[in-house]
Amino acid sequence: MDTVTNQSIFEELVSIVGTKNAFLLDEDKYKYSHDHTEDYSFMPDVVLKPSTPEEISAIMKMCNQHLIPVTPRGGGTGLSGGALPTKKGVVISMEKFNSILAIDELNLQATVEPGVITEVFQNAVKEKGLFYPPDPSSKGTCFLGGNLAENAGGPKAVKYGVTRDYVLNMQVVLPNGEIIWTAANVLKNSTGYNLTQLMCGSEGTLGVITKIVFKLRPYPRKDVTLLAPFTSNEEACRAIAAIFKAGIAPSGMEFMERDAIEKTQDYIKKEMGETVNVDLPDHVKAHLLIELDGNDEEVMMNEAEVILNVLDDFDTGGEVLFADTQAQKDELWKLRRNVSPAVNAYSLTKAEDVVVPRGNLPALIVYIKEVGKKYGFNSVCYGHAGDGNLHINIMKETLSDDYWNKEVNEGIGEIFEEVVRLGGTLSGEHGIGIAKRPYMQMAMGKVKLDLMRGIKNVFDPNNILNPEKIF
Amino acid sequence: MDTVTNQSIFEELVSIVGTKNAFLLDEDKYKYSHDHTEDYSFMPDVVLKPSTPEEISAIMKMCNQHLIPVTPRGGGTGLSGGALPTKKGVVISMEKFNSILAIDELNLQATVEPGVITEVFQNAVKEKGLFYPPDPSSKGTCFLGGNLAENAGGPKAVKYGVTRDYVLNMQVVLPNGEIIWTAANVLKNSTGYNLTQLMCGSEGTLGVITKIVFKLRPYPRKDVTLLAPFTSNEEACRAIAAIFKAGIAPSGMEFMERDAIEKTQDYIKKEMGETVNVDLPDHVKAHLLIELDGNDEEVMMNEAEVILNVLDDFDTGGEVLFADTQAQKDELWKLRRNVSPAVNAYSLTKAEDVVVPRGNLPALIVYIKEVGKKYGFNSVCYGHAGDGNLHINIMKETLSDDYWNKEVNEGIGEIFEEVVRLGGTLSGEHGIGIAKRPYMQMAMGKVKLDLMRGIKNVFDPNNILNPEKIF
Repeated sequence: MDTVTNQSIFEELVSIVGTKNAFLLDEDKYKYSHDHTEDYSFMPDVVLKPSTPEEISAIMKMCNQHLIPVTPRGGGTGLSGGALPTKKGVVISMEKFNSILAIDELNLQATVEPGVITEVFQNAVKEKGLFYPPDPSSKGTCFLGGNLAENAGGPKAVKYGVTRDYVLNMQVVLPNGEIIWTAANVLKNSTGYNLTQLMCGSEGTLGVITKIVFKLRPYPRKDVTLLAPFTSNEEACRAIAAIFKAGIAPSGMEFMERDAIEKTQDYIKKEMGETVNVDLPDHVKAHLLIELDGNDEEVMMNEAEVILNVLDDFDTGGEVLFADTQAQKDELWKLRRNVSPAVNAYSLTKAEDVVVPRGNLPALIVYIKEVGKKYGFNSVCYGHAGDGNLHINIMKETLSDDYWNKEVNEGIGEIFEEVVRLGGTLSGEHGIGIAKRPYMQMAMGKVKLDLMRGIKNVFDPNNILNPEKIF
Repeated sequence: MDTVTNQSIFEELVSIVGTKNAFLLDEDKYKYSHDHTEDYSFMPDVVLKPSTPEEISAIMKMCNQHLIPVTPRGGGTGLSGGALPTKKGVVISMEKFNSILAIDELNLQATVEPGVITEVFQNAVKEKGLFYPPDPSSKGTCFLGGNLAENAGGPKAVKYGVTRDYVLNMQVVLPNGEIIWTAANVLKNSTGYNLTQLMCGSEGTLGVITKIVFKLRPYPRKDVTLLAPFTSNEEACRAIAAIFKAGIAPSGMEFMERDAIEKTQDYIKKEMGETVNVDLPDHVKAHLLIELDGNDEEVMMNEAEVILNVLDDFDTGGEVLFADTQAQKDELWKLRRNVSPAVNAYSLTKAEDVVVPRGNLPALIVYIKEVGKKYGFNSVCYGHAGDGNLHINIMKETLSDDYWNKEVNEGIGEIFEEVVRLGGTLSGEHGIGIAKRPYMQMAMGKVKLDLMRGIKNVFDPNNILNPEKIF
């Protein structure tokens, strides 16, 4: 395998994007060497910032010919290391693909480039009364292309689905430089194998996304946010399934254990000088942050009433807080959105992203804490529990590097095995990348992994595109 | 390639399922030689009716070894010939896989075998207050496994999505006999390539589905049905996009041109001795059948009001009919569901199933009629126009066989080319099978078809499973 340190190859790559868009110096490349996954860092040989699908096509042809690894990169907010150039080579940064090309109000669709920041896109369609629901916590900096590559979710997924539920069609540059559209701009499609859904969640291993057609929804006009306390993690998780069973479809159903709230309150105070008031008497161990949305105030209030009735059967240990004002709602969601940064600021963490049928969450959370006790690590649990998706941030604190990299990983393996036993799997929305790769054999088995490797080989026979990811 | 007419191979296949479940005589095999696609008929060498995944695994191993074509078959209601044994060999009929294995009310999931009839499943979950929305017109006889293989839709898809939006996980027997689960029983999943969505819509070419895990929803408690007349097809299709633009999400938005209603009224009168009264003054050329559902009567009535206001801007040519009683609703939906059988009873038809962005429907329907004029064929247009999915039943009537098979196909090719130009594609919910296969190169291009062939080759290197379908 060549590397771009070969001068003539480097010059040819530079000639594709122009010298202003090619970076060789460590100080320029550093930010492309890491993402939001633990303390991983891998320096690429060169960072290129192309502006068109044709430039990417030329890069891919060149790299395919010379067997140079290529790693496409979005906003760099990944939590599984999916955009890290573990084999050096070229990083293609998609930051110049930052245009919203069309918002089609007649068909409720939008065509965008993959380097558009998720929140920028959400705001642009909201101005036209439209709604793009996927909203990962990193929405202020992550790119839509990265969201697609990892199939990102967020709090709204529980009612509105994840990124894969909104993509209709994508333009993709294949490893051999060919440019295709995966499908058509239609709401239903039974025309051959579903390349769109194959590409979505493939973590940049099958092609480089260069345009995306999303479907949109009308923006719901009203919402209400509740914060319900519980006397135990288990009790909170049990309540979740009961609320859905009562026929309610909340637009948010977030679980936060006590420690998540405390650490985040500290973090917000320290970093932003603000106070988020949540009543935390000693016997309150967890909270559910519940959002309802819709177009009719009365309907929403009736649903809230149903939820309160359901919660009567659980040990809440206190009053449910109704956030009346926008300021109150924003404060509660700021709390939730800052859990991950807060825990990361407190300690180096391994962020797990498991998902199980939501009825099995109570058993899972008990098990996680038992494994933590057995191996001597602390964890903060929170996340999109409405769809069974639990984030487990395991904290290094004072553990030794060796213990962190060996014994703690064994403990994580035990948690993953339990997740699979409970009908779940490794990742709900962060992807596998390099961080969860060691556990794929256990979760998938050889036959399925071989099918995935076979598919990879169809798209990328020379294994140049984002190698060493997933499997 | 061997065939099962080799006595020793036949005996071994029979020994897998038992003599009672293996059929060699033409009279027994006849019903497995055709489906609901035109007048296609292909007789298999043998029909097997296995009862377990393990039996199917043994059949697949045997057939893979001897290179015998295998065609899996559901309810036989396909409209693209996807379950027809064009290369003879074995038909695996899934009719013994007819159990609903579990309805999990806590997690709103169900595990079923693929031979369960769609309507039987819908009714079983409805008894528990749950909702499985995909409802192809053939729901009374089609199988859930076939729905998955073709990614079937139906009227509810416009609000609730198609079959692929409800499948979480599948057990599949691969062509080499290996048995896998494609995913996990979870609502979100970013764990490797999405084999579930790859399998869904692959028309039985990648594996034989033996168990399915579906997600369910709470059953909406109320609905209202409207029938709106229009003075032209175009006007009706223009109104569709306007209704969505007004922020309404109907649970049904069906288009029927005048001829569809007349032929169906005749058919229902003749076949069932019943009368469906729809006012059809001469100037009314098309109708929209619109359904709203929800849990709140008042909200629905407000939405209906919004629709009526939108329709004020269109040439309706008459009053919008509100179906108040369940009997009236049933009558209107009976009319809609019988369009396809009615047109088929009237003439041999080619049933197209194109899909475009819904804003482009008015242009499409004008184009279809122009092509019909040019080639001298009549067509009846109807379908799930809310999601841009138009069924075009082209009628043979008095056309010669030669003209039907050559010139009419050329005309269909012109329609497909326009569909692609309008941002659409060949099939919204019927699949490609053998009927639309000649048009795949035009719609997909070589690069994409080669990727699909490559994927097929990963799963089925000997090309024994449902050969000659899709591409």
